[in-house]
Amino acid sequence: MRYLRVGPAGQERPVAGSGGRFYDLSAVTADITGAFLAAGGITTVDGLPEIDISGERLGAPIARPGVVLCVGQNYAAHAAESGAEPPRVPIMFYKAPNTVVGPQDDILIPRGSRRTDWEVELGVVIGRTARYLDSPADAAGHVAGYVLSNDVSERDYQLDQSGGQWSKGKSCETFNPLGPWLVTPDEAPGPLRLRSWVNGEPRQDSTTADMIFGVDHLIWHLSQYTVLEPGDLINTGTPQGVALSGRFPYLTGGDVVEIEIDGLGRQRSVLRDAS
Amino acid sequence: MRYLRVGPAGQERPVAGSGGRFYDLSAVTADITGAFLAAGGITTVDGLPEIDISGERLGAPIARPGVVLCVGQNYAAHAAESGAEPPRVPIMFYKAPNTVVGPQDDILIPRGSRRTDWEVELGVVIGRTARYLDSPADAAGHVAGYVLSNDVSERDYQLDQSGGQWSKGKSCETFNPLGPWLVTPDEAPGPLRLRSWVNGEPRQDSTTADMIFGVDHLIWHLSQYTVLEPGDLINTGTPQGVALSGRFPYLTGGDVVEIEIDGLGRQRSVLRDAS
Repeated sequence: MRYLRVGPAGQERPVAGSGGRFYDLSAVTADITGAFLAAGGITTVDGLPEIDISGERLGAPIARPGVVLCVGQNYAAHAAESGAEPPRVPIMFYKAPNTVVGPQDDILIPRGSRRTDWEVELGVVIGRTARYLDSPADAAGHVAGYVLSNDVSERDYQLDQSGGQWSKGKSCETFNPLGPWLVTPDEAPGPLRLRSWVNGEPRQDSTTADMIFGVDHLIWHLSQYTVLEPGDLINTGTPQGVALSGRFPYLTGGDVVEIEIDGLGRQRSVLRDAS
Repeated sequence: MRYLRVGPAGQERPVAGSGGRFYDLSAVTADITGAFLAAGGITTVDGLPEIDISGERLGAPIARPGVVLCVGQNYAAHAAESGAEPPRVPIMFYKAPNTVVGPQDDILIPRGSRRTDWEVELGVVIGRTARYLDSPADAAGHVAGYVLSNDVSERDYQLDQSGGQWSKGKSCETFNPLGPWLVTPDEAPGPLRLRSWVNGEPRQDSTTADMIFGVDHLIWHLSQYTVLEPGDLINTGTPQGVALSGRFPYLTGGDVVEIEIDGLGRQRSVLRDAS
């Protein structure tokens, strides 16, 4: 099953996608919330009214998460291009949940920013409360689905104006385009290819098979340090090919960033200067 | 005005406090939310039913915040006892909002923890959206009030198992006792004395006058990097006198931590081992 939210920002309606068709979920749930996901979502579209969403704005496919938890340097080649050794344990930090926007919304370059950067990531949405899981094998039952996520970052804020705490460069408005869809695990099997482009030129191209810590390990590990709740979003780290590497210029107004993960859809974001 | 929430966890009712008396706010608002605060709260208790809250559990005085934003090393003597230089700019990081509990609730020592520590802090609750404020002088209009906050920390998780990102040691369940009251700025003038005790022995004793970056500066600064929203909580940093200093033992099951800020009330938390 796929879940979407369509409509103007702040007024999105819940939609289910199945077999290339779309169905209005409004009669089932007011929104794609943690409570809806914790209750198992829906397993069939039988009886739901089919709708045409062409031309509609896509919102993020989940309502505002309780937290957006990020995993840092979870691809060895990205750690290397960032000047770091691969981590021995997962590195966790948060970004503000009000950074989440739709997959075609503009990304605002913060006032005074000189180093706004892209990061394609596999997002995991929690479906069941995870607290002190016994082992990584217990993690799968706590996943509602997967989603395409851009963990947009301002490197001066993250690294130079931060005292070492990365959240300052991660939490600017519009810094987490999400979607188009939340895909249940049965529809997102196996390693997934992740890619990004700037103005049509390729940047990142990797696979989730290259993650240092896989999704199950991450959820198990994080659940030892915090209580993960239904609807929470985990950004699982980005592969090599970002501007921080020095190989590509940072983003400026008018640039177009596209990101894609096989089976999870594609985003297209235009960069604008924050007014 | 003072705001409280009383009743069983998850079922708290909103209460106003004025002149040592308490008034049921249920007819005015369902909860002490960002929306309630953004609308100005209440300015009089005239016409509200007076109630007796003795014997009732106190919840955190605000509904779950959108974010809990923390400022690190904002007292020079605490930075020194942590082995750090005073920061040149505010250090910001987040803790998970589901850490917030009431001012008399137990604090759970995480499984496997060896270094659970206390941190008395002045908490600031945002009352109006703050985005790119022009100057610190603009900050005051964005504050709903002040609240006593314990930014409980696990130092191994924060410093040794973290890859340098502190949030891992800040986000364990029950790690943010809050309250008893949210106090509007007119009732919390001037520098405030902050203190903490463990099993009745004094630990921290300082004043908000010793903050490196004051509240107005912090809100102005943070608003350049993220959008602060009504109901958000900012923990503004802790003074010297925590266990991390090496001068005191870390917390163990059965310990009692008390913290107090002049005019903002007092907390009493019993430490329990997480089951």
